[in-house]
Amino acid sequence: MNLLEELSRNEPSCLGQELYAFAASIYPICRSITGDGIRATLAAIQNRIPLNVSDIPSGTAVFDWTIPREWNISDAYIKNAGGNRIVDFREHNLHVVNYSTPVHAVMPLSKLRPHLFSLPAFPDRIPYRTTYYEENWGFCLSHRQLQSLEEGEYEVCIDSSLADGTLTYGEYYIPGNSSDEVLFSSHICHPSLANDNLSGIAIATFLAQFLSGRTLRYSYRFVFAPGTIGAISWLASNRDAAKRICNGLVLTCVGDEGPFHYKKSRRGNAQIDRAMARVLRDSGEEFTLLDFAPYGYDERQFCSPGFNLSVGCLMRSVWGTFPEYHTSADDLSFIQPLALAKSARICVALVDSLESDVRYVRQNPYCEPQLGRRNLYDSSGPDARTANLARLWILNLSDGDYSLSDIAERSGLPFSAIQEAARTLRLAGLLSPVGASLHDD
Amino acid sequence: MNLLEELSRNEPSCLGQELYAFAASIYPICRSITGDGIRATLAAIQNRIPLNVSDIPSGTAVFDWTIPREWNISDAYIKNAGGNRIVDFREHNLHVVNYSTPVHAVMPLSKLRPHLFSLPAFPDRIPYRTTYYEENWGFCLSHRQLQSLEEGEYEVCIDSSLADGTLTYGEYYIPGNSSDEVLFSSHICHPSLANDNLSGIAIATFLAQFLSGRTLRYSYRFVFAPGTIGAISWLASNRDAAKRICNGLVLTCVGDEGPFHYKKSRRGNAQIDRAMARVLRDSGEEFTLLDFAPYGYDERQFCSPGFNLSVGCLMRSVWGTFPEYHTSADDLSFIQPLALAKSARICVALVDSLESDVRYVRQNPYCEPQLGRRNLYDSSGPDARTANLARLWILNLSDGDYSLSDIAERSGLPFSAIQEAARTLRLAGLLSPVGASLHDD
Amino acid sequence: MNLLEELSRNEPSCLGQELYAFAASIYPICRSITGDGIRATLAAIQNRIPLNVSDIPSGTAVFDWTIPREWNISDAYIKNAGGNRIVDFREHNLHVVNYSTPVHAVMPLSKLRPHLFSLPAFPDRIPYRTTYYEENWGFCLSHRQLQSLEEGEYEVCIDSSLADGTLTYGEYYIPGNSSDEVLFSSHICHPSLANDNLSGIAIATFLAQFLSGRTLRYSYRFVFAPGTIGAISWLASNRDAAKRICNGLVLTCVGDEGPFHYKKSRRGNAQIDRAMARVLRDSGEEFTLLDFAPYGYDERQFCSPGFNLSVGCLMRSVWGTFPEYHTSADDLSFIQPLALAKSARICVALVDSLESDVRYVRQNPYCEPQLGRRNLYDSSGPDARTANLARLWILNLSDGDYSLSDIAERSGLPFSAIQEAARTLRLAGLLSPVGASLHDD
Repeated sequence: MNLLEELSRNEPSCLGQELYAFAASIYPICRSITGDGIRATLAAIQNRIPLNVSDIPSGTAVFDWTIPREWNISDAYIKNAGGNRIVDFREHNLHVVNYSTPVHAVMPLSKLRPHLFSLPAFPDRIPYRTTYYEENWGFCLSHRQLQSLEEGEYEVCIDSSLADGTLTYGEYYIPGNSSDEVLFSSHICHPSLANDNLSGIAIATFLAQFLSGRTLRYSYRFVFAPGTIGAISWLASNRDAAKRICNGLVLTCVGDEGPFHYKKSRRGNAQIDRAMARVLRDSGEEFTLLDFAPYGYDERQFCSPGFNLSVGCLMRSVWGTFPEYHTSADDLSFIQPLALAKSARICVALVDSLESDVRYVRQNPYCEPQLGRRNLYDSSGPDARTANLARLWILNLSDGDYSLSDIAERSGLPFSAIQEAARTLRLAGLLSPVGASLHDD
Repeated sequence: MNLLEELSRNEPSCLGQELYAFAASIYPICRSITGDGIRATLAAIQNRIPLNVSDIPSGTAVFDWTIPREWNISDAYIKNAGGNRIVDFREHNLHVVNYSTPVHAVMPLSKLRPHLFSLPAFPDRIPYRTTYYEENWGFCLSHRQLQSLEEGEYEVCIDSSLADGTLTYGEYYIPGNSSDEVLFSSHICHPSLANDNLSGIAIATFLAQFLSGRTLRYSYRFVFAPGTIGAISWLASNRDAAKRICNGLVLTCVGDEGPFHYKKSRRGNAQIDRAMARVLRDSGEEFTLLDFAPYGYDERQFCSPGFNLSVGCLMRSVWGTFPEYHTSADDLSFIQPLALAKSARICVALVDSLESDVRYVRQNPYCEPQLGRRNLYDSSGPDARTANLARLWILNLSDGDYSLSDIAERSGLPFSAIQEAARTLRLAGLLSPVGASLHDD
Repeated sequence: MNLLEELSRNEPSCLGQELYAFAASIYPICRSITGDGIRATLAAIQNRIPLNVSDIPSGTAVFDWTIPREWNISDAYIKNAGGNRIVDFREHNLHVVNYSTPVHAVMPLSKLRPHLFSLPAFPDRIPYRTTYYEENWGFCLSHRQLQSLEEGEYEVCIDSSLADGTLTYGEYYIPGNSSDEVLFSSHICHPSLANDNLSGIAIATFLAQFLSGRTLRYSYRFVFAPGTIGAISWLASNRDAAKRICNGLVLTCVGDEGPFHYKKSRRGNAQIDRAMARVLRDSGEEFTLLDFAPYGYDERQFCSPGFNLSVGCLMRSVWGTFPEYHTSADDLSFIQPLALAKSARICVALVDSLESDVRYVRQNPYCEPQLGRRNLYDSSGPDARTANLARLWILNLSDGDYSLSDIAERSGLPFSAIQEAARTLRLAGLLSPVGASLHDD
């Protein structure tokens, strides 16, 4: 089994189009950390994978936090003196500060102004603002529009509700041969923002589809939850499952055309960290490895000291550093099919790497086996040299301590060459896996 | 408690003047490894801190060494044929080779010459010479003067005595909450040499005054002893106390204007080594870290293999490498009030760092606590970003393994910001110290 | 005992001439992995050291391999239509592909051509080719000659035999105080190739002579065996001895004038690896340290996972990388007496280092001993400073954990200075060796 090869039979452009189309289909939904937008998003995912959806009632304590009241919104606008909607939620859901309390009033600009938010540095963009834990209301609009507002009376309406309800998240579990789990997590709370994080949702959904029904070494869990409070809720409700997570990846901002960034787990040298470094190195893509820091996305929660899970975060451009971040410019033109497809390939290569990262022992560990009489010494072909070296390295290092990825690292050879050589040597009866292995291809 | 802040309320210029004045007041004394010069020096220190003075009789075995006879001197000179004192101990105590046996004779220049020492490379300076363990006598003088001596008879007089007596050292102990000790050690055997080591004496004395009467986590011990034989005597007499030394610093050559040098302990990665590296880094001063080597000052004894204590050495210019070293040019013009004050600040920052270098555990280590509802997420102010990061880092790493300094190191944030954030989080009830802690401010 | 000093009493030029003469004397022999050439070579070594020769019968299984039939050859040629020997084994034994099956036939050039091998890139050189495990025959010749061959009939004759016989290797064992063994291994299967590996044979033979009869700390074993199958045979027949090998060195390509290369053992930080790095550093010769890789010479077998011995490989130019490699240009003009002598010096320095790499403890580990009263503090002489430093370092680090080589490494002082200082301090009664030591000079 080589998942990446199988994926490659798909044209990358097809895969990218598919990922992009799914992201585009859920782009218009107004999401928040609770409410119907989340439910609609989970339903869209459920059309593709049999998601298990959980509801945590408002008021439930989750560690240090409390599930807030549920927020829903049907309409919002600012009307000028002429009765025209000059700011209209129906045009862009970023226009309303997320979690705004309901309001309907007429007020002069001077009273309205403290509730208006814009980005002077990017005068054409609408910013993204939230007020989850502080009761308030507000509108976001372009700076250009803000500056053009004339004095006078404005009718302000936010037709929202804050009421006891639930926080909702979805998860999908693919059982493998081992109960050890690999986690993929994406936050689903952002409204119409494409890279952050419809890109992550699209890729996690695809990956779940792709792995579903396969015979796998590890079990896989996909969690789609609101950021922070959602991840905290999942952890609070799944402390046993959390203990089984041996590797995990938070997916965010994986649809733009920036180079890859992998932020390591708090452990810094976990299997996922080494695997991801290798996958990125072998991918030929431009990438940077970042040390763990306790700010970012839900790796913050998975890597909190009580859990300290081996969970890293894959991004292309890094949240907070690209100018489109948390503005209306993070729209469907900011993400690209090919970029999404490449990110998906990285995730598949990661799974491939984790699945294949077996340790072997030589059947007979003394001296070299005679490769020539087994036709295992290639004397021609463009990859003969690499293939021969890979075989020699595996035969030398397969003492039960080195995994295939360790061998790739020490030898400096591509993981794919090591994988291929291991398959060849295993078929030749020269290697046995340490512990159980599924790779009886 | 933040000792450094408290020190800063003192104007640095005042502190520097005070340190300088003390060094100047004991500059004229003719010290040696035994004798009345040492006693006078200890008495001057005793005027400031309640020093405990010990006397070890001549002939006592201290490890591989034996306490020598006590040396005292009242006068010494060379008179020329005209009866004029051309070399006069009363003018500079470096003129006499330290530990010279008594002599009173008239001799021709040819017989005198082997007893005369000068520095051809620095023709105006008097060198510093000793003959502790080899009976001999001699005079040190400027090379210019040596070359101007005319043939003829000279009257030579050294009115010294070598007789059974004692070797004297002083120490001051400040008990803290823990019996673990932090040692500060300065050699007190050099005669009129300002940087080496009146600078060290002045700073150690100041530090003892500054820490006296405070509630402290560690106990502190200040040892003022002659170099080598004095440190060896102290160690031979205090083997139990030596076992309690968890960190220590030899102070020498800390008054000149050169950049700082910290020589690491033999262990190389002891708490003192990491703390000093951090303190120097955070100080903004120019500095160099030096690896341990078994030559230098009394760290040689503290770091001998039988003790192997975590004791380093703080210097500005490094002994033996600056041209004034062990010459009459190491006088009161070579040390500077501001340089002394900065050295004292480094020492206080070190104590601060050691005192504050507590390990904490999160009260509830699962996920992040909700900082917003505790008003622990600063949204404005110039230091808001650093303060927030420091809080997140501490909350993430406080698993009982990381000390605050470890957190400072991993986060790359200034230790002061980490300290401040820890205080805030402790007051908010989010952290508990591991083991006993005094920081109940 | 200082072996290197003793060696230095030999003029390097004499040593070099001797090594060169021995290599030259066995250059004409046509060796292979079995047969009379090997026996003649072992006999030549036996004239110098009492080699123990073993014969392993054809058909014997040695781990994954089987001893092949024995190959011998008496003559071989290609005659042109005029009856002239245009390719003649008697002129150069590289002309015949090693292990060629017998053939005697007349054939046109077109049928002969697939059996002819040349080097287009080096048109004047004869390549070196083998066909040990695949029945075939062939001739090697210069590309220039190949191109000049005219169409027509040629008489081809290889008067060789392939028959049951034995594989032969020789070994010489010098018992030391400890049963722990240091291995030196050279392959002896190459025909007239000087650097690869008459150079290694000459130096190993010399080293065995040089160490013979001495009182040694370690035991020494010299193995002269055909490459790969010979080393595998030795290992298969000597599994107990293999367990006693604590350090080992494969010697190959040590006679040319290239800079030294030491390829580390699979362990990477074995005693031999650290010793060799130090020896090369102290030698003043240009050198490079190479990481282990599972291709090269017989270190492949010694470092296979079932053995994982601490065996490295010393080379000057690296096999496979110099243009003379495996061609007729690797002749007696390619190796140089002085280069051979320097390589031999490196090996002697290695033995010196291993023999002297004792750990000591201070008799009294507290503080420094008083060196002055023991006249152990040198005040003059060009090496006084180094000698004093070496003594201080040893006294500081001799806690039973640091060996003399560890001390050399940490201090940055030459190993010879550390050795000398250890001898002085031991004679002064300040040090005791940890465990048994022979150095009671």
